[in-house]
Amino acid sequence: MEGCRVAVVGATGAVGKVFLRIAEERKFPYTALRLCATERSWGKRLLVNGQEHIVEPATPELFSQVDIAFISASGKASREYGPIAVQQGALVIDDSSTFRMDPNVPLVVPEVNADDLDGHQGIISIPNCSTTPLVMVLKPLNHLNPVRRVVVDTYQSVSGKGSKAVAELLDQTRLLHEGRTVAANDLPQRIAYNLFPHIDNFEDTGYTKEEMKMVGETRKILHLPDLPLSATCVRVPVLVGHSEAVHVEFERPMAVATVREVLSESIGIRVVDNPASALYPMPIEAEGIDDVLVGRIRKDLSHPNGIALWLSSDNLRKGAALNAIQIAEDVLKRGLLLRQRKAQSWRR
Amino acid sequence: MEGCRVAVVGATGAVGKVFLRIAEERKFPYTALRLCATERSWGKRLLVNGQEHIVEPATPELFSQVDIAFISASGKASREYGPIAVQQGALVIDDSSTFRMDPNVPLVVPEVNADDLDGHQGIISIPNCSTTPLVMVLKPLNHLNPVRRVVVDTYQSVSGKGSKAVAELLDQTRLLHEGRTVAANDLPQRIAYNLFPHIDNFEDTGYTKEEMKMVGETRKILHLPDLPLSATCVRVPVLVGHSEAVHVEFERPMAVATVREVLSESIGIRVVDNPASALYPMPIEAEGIDDVLVGRIRKDLSHPNGIALWLSSDNLRKGAALNAIQIAEDVLKRGLLLRQRKAQSWRR
Repeated sequence: MEGCRVAVVGATGAVGKVFLRIAEERKFPYTALRLCATERSWGKRLLVNGQEHIVEPATPELFSQVDIAFISASGKASREYGPIAVQQGALVIDDSSTFRMDPNVPLVVPEVNADDLDGHQGIISIPNCSTTPLVMVLKPLNHLNPVRRVVVDTYQSVSGKGSKAVAELLDQTRLLHEGRTVAANDLPQRIAYNLFPHIDNFEDTGYTKEEMKMVGETRKILHLPDLPLSATCVRVPVLVGHSEAVHVEFERPMAVATVREVLSESIGIRVVDNPASALYPMPIEAEGIDDVLVGRIRKDLSHPNGIALWLSSDNLRKGAALNAIQIAEDVLKRGLLLRQRKAQSWRR
Repeated sequence: MEGCRVAVVGATGAVGKVFLRIAEERKFPYTALRLCATERSWGKRLLVNGQEHIVEPATPELFSQVDIAFISASGKASREYGPIAVQQGALVIDDSSTFRMDPNVPLVVPEVNADDLDGHQGIISIPNCSTTPLVMVLKPLNHLNPVRRVVVDTYQSVSGKGSKAVAELLDQTRLLHEGRTVAANDLPQRIAYNLFPHIDNFEDTGYTKEEMKMVGETRKILHLPDLPLSATCVRVPVLVGHSEAVHVEFERPMAVATVREVLSESIGIRVVDNPASALYPMPIEAEGIDDVLVGRIRKDLSHPNGIALWLSSDNLRKGAALNAIQIAEDVLKRGLLLRQRKAQSWRR
């Protein structure tokens, strides 16, 4: 794999930190690494692969000196820096929802739709951390027996909101144990010993944007533009790891053994499904590993062609940083860096 | 309302304590109150309505001296003491799953199927704490537009398992904050900053007994013996309050406004559904109140006749103790005490 120069925008954030750790683990072949963050982190030193890197501002000049810019900061940061980076010749791999539904932007989970990378025009989006594990499960099953409808309810950890939310859960919990009162700050409600069905903003339909991301992104990634899907997205007092209760209806009846076999053979999925030994996915087991854990695979008793299952996945790894690095690896393998292609302008 | 003599078996447990508090709140007209628990609590003194009561063993003699025996201890305690209490002439209101599916035992949520009380033969069961709020929502909607299928995923607090599980969550959390390791004891897995789809034992189908309780009990209470229902029951690190993501399919399309109106007019339900103001049910809002909180009412985008909603309910109150006391109140109103009826023997 050829080397390339990389910038990480949001390097001090929850996902950024994991990105750097995974780049080390996977020996991602960067020849230069630039770390960017907001002003209060400028000058901070971070160790990556034993080398010290100084956090600096994201500037057009900096983007002109890298081949890949990974952006995981905020929607605002992506809107601002994404187009600039592309203009400067960098390929952008973006973690925000900003570009995901743009028809010119591939939205990619490499195990599912890596071929969509070929059509990129400078920006590649990674899906929302609750969408990624879902499409990884649906894809191989849909190949065998078309998926007709999906109902999914999520159990999403605070790290999906970022480092501040993680600190908030820990702080609130400590304060409650000291008998003190707590106030919500970064999250919309108290999260310690509580949970709430409110992730991202509400739309007029009564759905949250987070829930609609799961609908739109799943359809786009699976190339099933009309797939009926309904989601309830819930924030839970867990630090890392998103879990999902999934109910899938297929075109034809689907045997539990078949689902288990197909998922066991799928790259990026580990079936953990031995209830007799109390083995099933849990967020604390998913934390820190690459695979999406799938278990509780059973007939959906309420539908003749239904399967119910349960999954847990590290929202910072496969849900974000790992998926981004896998995309970068595929981009290098396929020779898809922007500088290797005809000059194109990114118009928004 | 005439008075009656009451025994509480499991008086020192999570539900028993709440039962005594609610008896005070509602001025339940007992003329005598006997508190029973396991041996290690014998001799303990509890204040109820300003009167001291000594915890004592549950004996046939004691049951012969009361009109109503409320049992909330364990399945074993219910199997042992239920039939003895009835033999001794006491009406049993039982919180365990032991008798719920017995065709001779009314399984009652007073707002839903109080008339089923009339046929009792000495034992009345209250539903599982995750079933009760669900049937309260389904009943008035089904009356208007027949329910054809229900998919429900739960977020159940540790108090549903009992006082030990509450202590375990608090202890584990404290230990983790001190940087120490934790071990599961009363619950099957670590619960602090974690969650797992494992409540009660697993059956061969891959479902847990808890999930199958929701299926069987909902069908029995609603008198819909074939209602297709699928549940995933999940334990979450919340102290009190069970929440549920519910997806209902009706015979015909159902307007959101209609659902909201019907539920707003239903006794025991409070609609909390103003997403623009971040108002929706949460366990910490449901804790300590009688009403089931319902919100996030919206079209299920994946089904033409579907409605999705979200509820939170105090599993110790409406999910257990309050429902039991409401049954006792109805029993008194209807003159259904066992001693007022022809002598019957309870045969198992």
